[in-house]
Amino acid sequence: MPALPLDRSREPRLRYLIDHKTKPLGALGQLEALALQIGLIQQTETPALTQPHLLVFAADHGIAAEGVSAYPAEVTYQMVQNFINGGAAINVFCRQQGLSLVVCDVGVRGTFEHNTPEFVKFKVQPGTRNMCHEPALSIDDCEAAMDAGRMLVDGVQHRGCNTVGFGEMGIGNTSSAALLMHRLLNLPLAQCVGRGTGLTDAQLAHKLTVLQAVADRYAHFTKPMELLCAMGGLEIAAIAGGMLRAAENQMVILVDGFIATAALLVARALDPAVLDYCVFSHQSAEQGHRLMLDALNARPLLHLDLRLGEGTGCALAYPLLQSAVAMLNEMASFEQAGISEKP
Amino acid sequence: MPALPLDRSREPRLRYLIDHKTKPLGALGQLEALALQIGLIQQTETPALTQPHLLVFAADHGIAAEGVSAYPAEVTYQMVQNFINGGAAINVFCRQQGLSLVVCDVGVRGTFEHNTPEFVKFKVQPGTRNMCHEPALSIDDCEAAMDAGRMLVDGVQHRGCNTVGFGEMGIGNTSSAALLMHRLLNLPLAQCVGRGTGLTDAQLAHKLTVLQAVADRYAHFTKPMELLCAMGGLEIAAIAGGMLRAAENQMVILVDGFIATAALLVARALDPAVLDYCVFSHQSAEQGHRLMLDALNARPLLHLDLRLGEGTGCALAYPLLQSAVAMLNEMASFEQAGISEKP
Repeated sequence: MPALPLDRSREPRLRYLIDHKTKPLGALGQLEALALQIGLIQQTETPALTQPHLLVFAADHGIAAEGVSAYPAEVTYQMVQNFINGGAAINVFCRQQGLSLVVCDVGVRGTFEHNTPEFVKFKVQPGTRNMCHEPALSIDDCEAAMDAGRMLVDGVQHRGCNTVGFGEMGIGNTSSAALLMHRLLNLPLAQCVGRGTGLTDAQLAHKLTVLQAVADRYAHFTKPMELLCAMGGLEIAAIAGGMLRAAENQMVILVDGFIATAALLVARALDPAVLDYCVFSHQSAEQGHRLMLDALNARPLLHLDLRLGEGTGCALAYPLLQSAVAMLNEMASFEQAGISEKP
Repeated sequence: MPALPLDRSREPRLRYLIDHKTKPLGALGQLEALALQIGLIQQTETPALTQPHLLVFAADHGIAAEGVSAYPAEVTYQMVQNFINGGAAINVFCRQQGLSLVVCDVGVRGTFEHNTPEFVKFKVQPGTRNMCHEPALSIDDCEAAMDAGRMLVDGVQHRGCNTVGFGEMGIGNTSSAALLMHRLLNLPLAQCVGRGTGLTDAQLAHKLTVLQAVADRYAHFTKPMELLCAMGGLEIAAIAGGMLRAAENQMVILVDGFIATAALLVARALDPAVLDYCVFSHQSAEQGHRLMLDALNARPLLHLDLRLGEGTGCALAYPLLQSAVAMLNEMASFEQAGISEKP
């Protein structure tokens, strides 16, 4: 079921309300565009953000064996354990901002004993295959991962959530993201490949060589689902599925950094209307992210040189969504406040 | 009493703690620099932001009679009434973020009946004189306004506040700010003068002509206090005094946009150590602000094209300070989490 493109019939009324708040015209900059967008998504002049959630999908990557990441592959498992224990950046920021965090294992190598509503086990495969040698995912596995994303989004909406951010953890996943970007945006691979968690110049050159071979191997694929299967990660597929469902559900979607935006490129290729529901939380320091945002005509809220993933940009930007909504709901108009307007 | 320059002896230890959190080195970008700065200001590895306050100083400007603002002068009084009634943007954002708001009349034309601890009456004069014809402030009035800022800062510190933002309201005050910038940064006046609350091209040209005459009139003044008296506003003087006292008190200072940064230029000229305590909340859409920030080597946290003043940028950026502090206090280290470090 495709998402509905935004019904813009309330736009003039929302603009009128924003323009007549007690401030110079346009003086709240990007917050005004944000308030308008949220009002249109929720089809109301009094929007509210309810039960916000951050969904983190974690999975391993066969291509990590090629030395494309600064960290060893076992860090994916270890970091998920860190999420479970509450010690990662995304735990800290979600607690601080009042976002509910749900972590989902869609493909981590290794078994977790932990079992709570905040940790969902949906392991499709213990990691993708090495795409240097064969497509990373079968179509069945890819669709199962997308379904995991859809189910989680439906689940949190059932709890009353209307605003959802997506994060990821997966050593090696900037390789998948760079390849998907290269193919879906038709940009030179070298502009899409970056240092990820901190490669040296020599390691970056190696990563580019490895990924060029992968790009050449699957040059005959053109459809988004083919590309996602060949080059994708399970967490990227889950996020793409989750974003598509969130748009169908008319929820506000918080987009994080390089990996999450690569997932959005897949989702957009499958259903362009998904973009109407997206708020771009930040511009990452990973070099390709700015180009992705440019291609999407997206204006990110934060520019803090973050490059951590996990959904941290979503959590950090969330208060700005609250501010935009509060502006619309709580600020007085010139008329209400009895203030002289511009002559 | 000048402020103490930051004691940087804890810097290596703070950097070690930040670098060993479970994230790639530097992956939290500006938040890491922010955590370091707050740790150094508070001289601790476990900083805390307590009882944060936003102080808004309001005053009128004699030069408003020259048609340099898009709004009539009575809007200063009306907007203060709006602050009192809780309907302005700064009310909304402070409520949302848990900042205590205190509004201080240092020079508004008109009398307020309202009297509460959140609305402080310290009217030095009902507005400045018209600086086209005579210096805006006598030295006694200027010092009285600065003392108002100092007293409010001491007052909120007494309530347990260690983090303070400064906002302003005053029709015509971008004229004072532009002139102070012109003289204190030695930049061409045309680069310092902007559209304020929304001037047309013709109005902007008129503003520049008026301000050039003022700049010429006081070209023989060079000392910061002389310039502040000649060209300043009462609210700008109050903020400068408040910032100086906040630095003396070793508090975290949140700097807002064009006007508040002009006040900081005065404060810095009187005591350069004040800069060590400043967190730059945002880069305003008012054209001169970027140049001010460049001159101060400041990296603002937000770039949202705000141009409202009132301290709104401080309130919107405040959650990022909380995030930085929470990162330092709550994130696990690689060792604590048992995670493999980079080989």
